[in-house]
Amino acid sequence: MMLPDIFQHYRNQIDIELSSILEGYQLPLYDMLRYHLGYLDVHGNPSSHSIGKALRSTLCLMACEAVSGDFQRALPAAAALELVHNFSLIHDDIQDGDRERRHRPTVWAIHGQPQAINAGMAMRVLANVSMMRLNEHSVPSATLLQAMALLDQTSLRLIEGQYLDLSFEQRQDISTDDYLNMVKLKTVSLIACALELGAMLVVEDRCLVQPLVNFGINLGFAFQLRDDMLGIWGDQGVTGKPVGSDILRRKKSFPVVFAWQNSNDGEREILSRLYQHEQIDQDGKGQVLQILDRTEARKQSQKLIDKYCQDARMEIGQAQVSATGRACFTELIEFLSNREF
Amino acid sequence: MMLPDIFQHYRNQIDIELSSILEGYQLPLYDMLRYHLGYLDVHGNPSSHSIGKALRSTLCLMACEAVSGDFQRALPAAAALELVHNFSLIHDDIQDGDRERRHRPTVWAIHGQPQAINAGMAMRVLANVSMMRLNEHSVPSATLLQAMALLDQTSLRLIEGQYLDLSFEQRQDISTDDYLNMVKLKTVSLIACALELGAMLVVEDRCLVQPLVNFGINLGFAFQLRDDMLGIWGDQGVTGKPVGSDILRRKKSFPVVFAWQNSNDGEREILSRLYQHEQIDQDGKGQVLQILDRTEARKQSQKLIDKYCQDARMEIGQAQVSATGRACFTELIEFLSNREF
Repeated sequence: MMLPDIFQHYRNQIDIELSSILEGYQLPLYDMLRYHLGYLDVHGNPSSHSIGKALRSTLCLMACEAVSGDFQRALPAAAALELVHNFSLIHDDIQDGDRERRHRPTVWAIHGQPQAINAGMAMRVLANVSMMRLNEHSVPSATLLQAMALLDQTSLRLIEGQYLDLSFEQRQDISTDDYLNMVKLKTVSLIACALELGAMLVVEDRCLVQPLVNFGINLGFAFQLRDDMLGIWGDQGVTGKPVGSDILRRKKSFPVVFAWQNSNDGEREILSRLYQHEQIDQDGKGQVLQILDRTEARKQSQKLIDKYCQDARMEIGQAQVSATGRACFTELIEFLSNREF
Repeated sequence: MMLPDIFQHYRNQIDIELSSILEGYQLPLYDMLRYHLGYLDVHGNPSSHSIGKALRSTLCLMACEAVSGDFQRALPAAAALELVHNFSLIHDDIQDGDRERRHRPTVWAIHGQPQAINAGMAMRVLANVSMMRLNEHSVPSATLLQAMALLDQTSLRLIEGQYLDLSFEQRQDISTDDYLNMVKLKTVSLIACALELGAMLVVEDRCLVQPLVNFGINLGFAFQLRDDMLGIWGDQGVTGKPVGSDILRRKKSFPVVFAWQNSNDGEREILSRLYQHEQIDQDGKGQVLQILDRTEARKQSQKLIDKYCQDARMEIGQAQVSATGRACFTELIEFLSNREF
């Protein structure tokens, strides 16, 4: 399964926009940001390491074009979305103690936690700086202020989601509803925001924007739930992570929360015991995988993904977008619901 | 020596503005912010603990009134300045490992570093939310965008300063110029920004704004250098910190950097050895205090403060501000140059 062409379509422009924002900032502080974004290698030399799928910026530009806008106009917003997403990754890596991301050492693993906190914060402020560039693309001031307010509110949702996610580590009583509420804040909100930004920079009519937002909400849930599945059952050759890696890291992702909720007393006791420890070993992983099997957590996760994808298809069907736009969004749904990476 | 009346004059309004911004945010995440700002005690009960002098917001409102504006208009900017200042305090406490601030446990000491990172980031985003409220005070969109860009650029300066400050911990070759450059970014920039914001919301003419900015730069240096002196020679009964506390914490503040630069070979060897360790003990503190004495670091620090205060007086003398405004600014200079807390 390949990444849909649409990702390649904008990729170069997104990188140019991001590099151009960073150009004015030459202190060593900003090299941490360039490194995280893949523009520098670990030795500080120029690099073209992938920063990932750039899903959020791509969605923003797709939405802009789908409502007949010139995607160039939305580039500063697309870059801002990547900067917001990546501030949260830099801080998440500190908070989770993760030493590796995208096959490279994380910023804090190289520069220490104190400086990585600075890197994340600078990344978030640069998102504002990026948004300001919309002014040069003749976006009216009132629209720009609305767009900035949306990105700020979404950033708060992100932080609220991360707050909940971290607090779940200490809890044994998380329901799938609790989990989905956390995902809505931590992941879905920024994906929906990407679509909203791309559309609102072009059209004022809320009736044209809202179906794209609803599409984004469903797509966001499907994306995260698929991510959760890959973290447990993903193919190591493709994801770069061994099977069950999210179990070893004690992540309470959807399949685990589902299994917990649907386990019998004996299984729940095992889960309680295992997730109390600092780490889960290979033997514990085997036990968790068995409980996931018994409760059909994999099947139920995919079923929920399929439901979100169906709703996403319905929303995009109702949206007043170009035929090309609709086709691209539909291809994206198919990819995200079955992706292996 | 008392805090000038002007601080009391705005204090209530600043608190009302800050509380009103936080009102819409009820998740436990935001209780960390309320706690840090002194609106909640450590048990989560309402409290009216002082958040400090609120210097930055006060300066903003003073500048607004001094150029004949209604200070109510600038309240959202004043609140935003406090939020920016306080995000940096929450993160500084994590980065420096400080467990206490204003006689209370720091946010990270209570909630752990991961959640305190979230608290600081939420605080910074709320500064944007606060700025947006200027729109309701009939500030034109173009002015608002300019003001937001200024606060963003200043936030980057703050982070750059904190980056340098942390990097100084690993260095033995810091000159007083290096140090003052770091202070300019970390402390002076936000103080100058406070004055600029207060004035620019009322007057467009750059000739009216710039003298206030220049005043703020000089005041900011005087403020930080006095802070550095208090961290070493402050009266424990007033500051709450024992004499030499910044030496025990190995802070390379101005007097230490000055002494280092002006020490003889033997003294430099002692300083090098002491500042290489994780902590400096009472005996080491005595040695450092002796070298500070010998190099006249205290006298020279005060001399530099006096020079900045003189320049601040000159700038405010040239500024086109109301007579009341000028009198208040002058009183502030006298206070900040000799304050004991």
